[in-house]
Amino acid sequence: MYTRPLARLIEHLQRLPGIGPKTAQRLAFHLLRRPKSEALQLAQALVEATEQIGVCSRCFNLSAEDPCDICRQPGRQGETICVVAEPRDLVAIERTREFKGHYHVLGGLINPMEGIGPEQLRIKELLQRVGADTVKEVILAINPSTEGEMTTMYLSKYVKVLGPRVTRIAFGLPVGGDLEYADEMTLARALEGRREI
Amino acid sequence: MYTRPLARLIEHLQRLPGIGPKTAQRLAFHLLRRPKSEALQLAQALVEATEQIGVCSRCFNLSAEDPCDICRQPGRQGETICVVAEPRDLVAIERTREFKGHYHVLGGLINPMEGIGPEQLRIKELLQRVGADTVKEVILAINPSTEGEMTTMYLSKYVKVLGPRVTRIAFGLPVGGDLEYADEMTLARALEGRREI
Repeated sequence: MYTRPLARLIEHLQRLPGIGPKTAQRLAFHLLRRPKSEALQLAQALVEATEQIGVCSRCFNLSAEDPCDICRQPGRQGETICVVAEPRDLVAIERTREFKGHYHVLGGLINPMEGIGPEQLRIKELLQRVGADTVKEVILAINPSTEGEMTTMYLSKYVKVLGPRVTRIAFGLPVGGDLEYADEMTLARALEGRREI
Repeated sequence: MYTRPLARLIEHLQRLPGIGPKTAQRLAFHLLRRPKSEALQLAQALVEATEQIGVCSRCFNLSAEDPCDICRQPGRQGETICVVAEPRDLVAIERTREFKGHYHVLGGLINPMEGIGPEQLRIKELLQRVGADTVKEVILAINPSTEGEMTTMYLSKYVKVLGPRVTRIAFGLPVGGDLEYADEMTLARALEGRREI
């Protein structure tokens, strides 16, 4: 039905998450309708990203340089380390522009069901950083899932003995949210995390 | 926030239809988490599709060969030509496995608002085919939009004078559809197209 190279392109697009056969076909036809340069630029961006991006040897964020931009930024305070599971979580926090410390990307969460223990994550490296540098606070910015809770418990235990404060981001009603529609878990967390005004 | 090659990849993914910044970020992070070969294969598929796919000089379907697979298939009857606007419409009809004739891809529909007249489409080429070959029927498989109606009217006028029957695919209640929920236009078409049983 499709000419060979088109079938192959659709097949590869379909392997991407959230892209089904219909969307893959639409994307492929779109690319073939546009000037050739567009598809070729996308191909080049793919090759360059794949070949140039590695991880920062300090914080394990995705980076084309080592150490990464954030670790090299002079205005950042190394006394605070924000621990996240994945690079995308780091991006979400950077977007707030509220955090001026350093990061540490674990590369996942403890998940015994999938055989991911502390040794599969960059926890040893975090403890080394905390032990070596003058770190005063470690902020855990980790999702409130079962795996997130386990990882948080584990980290707080091992980081605390090295000296710094260990804090966790707040969970509660989202800004613009409505008490009436919030689920019980969120409301329970919001109550638990209440603060003096 | 993103390391350079990552920002570039996200930017290029975002140019695809239906892919916003969030999805582009998710796709990029996905590709970087997977084995390198996956992104490189996608890049190669893009390059090959772009460089190898042209159009069939007979039917103007997308094809890496000329004439295309369908035009060369021996079992196909050249007496019937099915006219479609875009290659994706041809694919939709091929999926039914009901049609064993040849195709003709117009490359769009007449659309005066966007300055697309009959001369921008492959209508001249269709009329040449109909005039030269022993074509007995031309089936118009064109969407029932304003542009589709205009194109259908135009084609039927110029094809008929060359001799063949001109037919149009039926419009009506979709299979599995419900009278109660069908819009008036569809129901009007269904009534108009009623047949003896």
